[in-house]
Amino acid sequence: MTADILIRNARPFGGAPVDLVIRDGRFAVPGANRPTLEIDAGGQIALPGLVEAHTHLDKTLVGMDWFENRVGPTRNDRILADRKAKRELGIDARRQSARQAMQTLKYGVLHIRSHVDVDTEIGIANIEGVIATREALRDLVDIQIVAFPQSGMLPRAGTLELMDDAMRAGADIVGGIDPASIERDPVRHLDAIFALSQRHGKPLDIHLHELADLGAFCLELIVERTRALSMQGRVTVSHGYCLGMLEPNRQRALIEALAAERIAVMTVGSPSAPALPLRLMRECGLIVCSGSDGIQGTWEPWGNGDMLERAKYLAQRNGMTNDADLTETARICTFGGAEAIGLDGYGFTEGDFGDLVLVPAQTLAQAVALTPQARTVIRRGRVLARDGILSGDLLHVA
Amino acid sequence: MTADILIRNARPFGGAPVDLVIRDGRFAVPGANRPTLEIDAGGQIALPGLVEAHTHLDKTLVGMDWFENRVGPTRNDRILADRKAKRELGIDARRQSARQAMQTLKYGVLHIRSHVDVDTEIGIANIEGVIATREALRDLVDIQIVAFPQSGMLPRAGTLELMDDAMRAGADIVGGIDPASIERDPVRHLDAIFALSQRHGKPLDIHLHELADLGAFCLELIVERTRALSMQGRVTVSHGYCLGMLEPNRQRALIEALAAERIAVMTVGSPSAPALPLRLMRECGLIVCSGSDGIQGTWEPWGNGDMLERAKYLAQRNGMTNDADLTETARICTFGGAEAIGLDGYGFTEGDFGDLVLVPAQTLAQAVALTPQARTVIRRGRVLARDGILSGDLLHVA
Repeated sequence: MTADILIRNARPFGGAPVDLVIRDGRFAVPGANRPTLEIDAGGQIALPGLVEAHTHLDKTLVGMDWFENRVGPTRNDRILADRKAKRELGIDARRQSARQAMQTLKYGVLHIRSHVDVDTEIGIANIEGVIATREALRDLVDIQIVAFPQSGMLPRAGTLELMDDAMRAGADIVGGIDPASIERDPVRHLDAIFALSQRHGKPLDIHLHELADLGAFCLELIVERTRALSMQGRVTVSHGYCLGMLEPNRQRALIEALAAERIAVMTVGSPSAPALPLRLMRECGLIVCSGSDGIQGTWEPWGNGDMLERAKYLAQRNGMTNDADLTETARICTFGGAEAIGLDGYGFTEGDFGDLVLVPAQTLAQAVALTPQARTVIRRGRVLARDGILSGDLLHVA
Repeated sequence: MTADILIRNARPFGGAPVDLVIRDGRFAVPGANRPTLEIDAGGQIALPGLVEAHTHLDKTLVGMDWFENRVGPTRNDRILADRKAKRELGIDARRQSARQAMQTLKYGVLHIRSHVDVDTEIGIANIEGVIATREALRDLVDIQIVAFPQSGMLPRAGTLELMDDAMRAGADIVGGIDPASIERDPVRHLDAIFALSQRHGKPLDIHLHELADLGAFCLELIVERTRALSMQGRVTVSHGYCLGMLEPNRQRALIEALAAERIAVMTVGSPSAPALPLRLMRECGLIVCSGSDGIQGTWEPWGNGDMLERAKYLAQRNGMTNDADLTETARICTFGGAEAIGLDGYGFTEGDFGDLVLVPAQTLAQAVALTPQARTVIRRGRVLARDGILSGDLLHVA
């Protein structure tokens, strides 16, 4: 596959320095072979590929003209503005998804789960666009595609059928959206998407912004269906703000129920939304991952997709400042993400994929706090970026 | 003072493009003189110097070894860790303050108000260190020094006398700290610092983390004293989280009372502390400024001191995503700061100081959202940084 390479003096996840060997694209025991490439990491930290577990590749405006945001404050205002922008700005899902994926490659983001809009105006065009990117970039980054009914499914006749089309076209995951506040019928929405998931044998990832008790009720419905259908380890809840808004006993009980069904929770650590109780979630063994959500789009004007910076946002939102806590937020953006989105061969053990990100920092906490940019990114033994600069052969990919 | 310079095609605060002339260090009408230096801004936005209205220059660890943070979660844990670090790490206030001020110069931070610790262990050594930096860098950046009783004043006998020493040594502003939760006696604390302020004829800047009703009570005490002593426009409250925690009528009444006494409020937009109601504060005419708080210290491991990034944090914490709101957060970090800390000659009018920061962005909102780094910084007509690179003669200043 690729030539054997040797990375000397790297510190996996901030641990003791070791030499790492990648042979045929996977970590291997050091052998007698002379490596064809040798990199002196100089004691830098080695992270496995950063995991972007929640973004919207089809809707970023990266590289396009500035979008003047005059959008109102409600979620519905934003959904309308979003659909209007798709029509009027001519956002090309293939081109834009490739731009974002290539932009985040230099940070070491090697795995992306993207929600991709399906609606009755655009049909599955965005799904097809991101599938084209997924295939074009398959030697550089893994992309998982969630068929996402952004504009609502039940209230917009034909959307469920389009989601079925999206799954047949090659989407990887069935998406869902606020079963009560947008869908107006939590049971029927959840039954429909669980059924779609079962029919295609694909996992589920459900946007859940519902707050407090309404959100908790929806989570209970999700837990019940996951258990009844034996879908443990195949369901993710994205956002789940309600988990940060319940009285302590109920909060813990619900987190334990999610953990028991191995339902993962994705949180972006938004500064303006309720903070999730990260320490308690960890204590209860919940699978937690993170993502950038949309970057530079009509919803939010900022974002660069750097998942190490995201670890900082998680810590900041939770008032975490000590090294142990920062190390945990780094774990969420690597191993947590890998478990949540179901990656195989993730880590530094012999046989794992030969992917790593070298970060110049003394400790993991420092890497999170200062997010050094001069990273070296290696995937399957191929050097994609060196000291923060994308390899020359990749500069014109998107 | 400096040679006349001409900046062509710059857009002051994102407005229409103009040519700006700086003569003898101040903005002037274009004349017949041939400029000695001409800069083509190419339509970049011109901001006046960014205003860092709240930091702790004496305690940053920038450029030092990574501090492993094992500090507990309470404010008292942090104060103890902070004092211990000053002893054990040998944080040199002169050196460290110069490092931070020079680091933020390339972002265009030309005005800094720094709280500087005064306590019974270090005495006024940190004040003297930052005064040395203030003088050494006076041709590059304005530094205001607040004599700050970080470890408490009333509970630690001798601290008030040290603050008096600090003011006589050349501190610019009298500081205060949580009058109830740390000082244990709000009336006596406030009476003491207002008296010190009156005796030295210097303004006040009071750290107020007290929450909800306790904070509101302390704010009322501050309003009462400001009115009684006719100190309108001379008092700043830093943090003031309680303003984000009151029921709407009381919230508005208190904000109106602060505005009536021209008491400024400083907020950093911390993701883990209550968000201040920025829209309401603006509507009531309150003077609002912002700051980085400590950067890379024992309190918080992160931070770069970029006040344009700070404008982004303010917007993110408040869930503000539209262009109009982002423009307002940029205003807080420029004109708001200038008004709060009492800068003269701030702006682009003829006679104002010839200070500006060119930012490559289409709109102010884009500048806030994406915080471009390639800024050109000019102070009193002298080019301090060009396209994000500090001028060669400044590289070894700190």
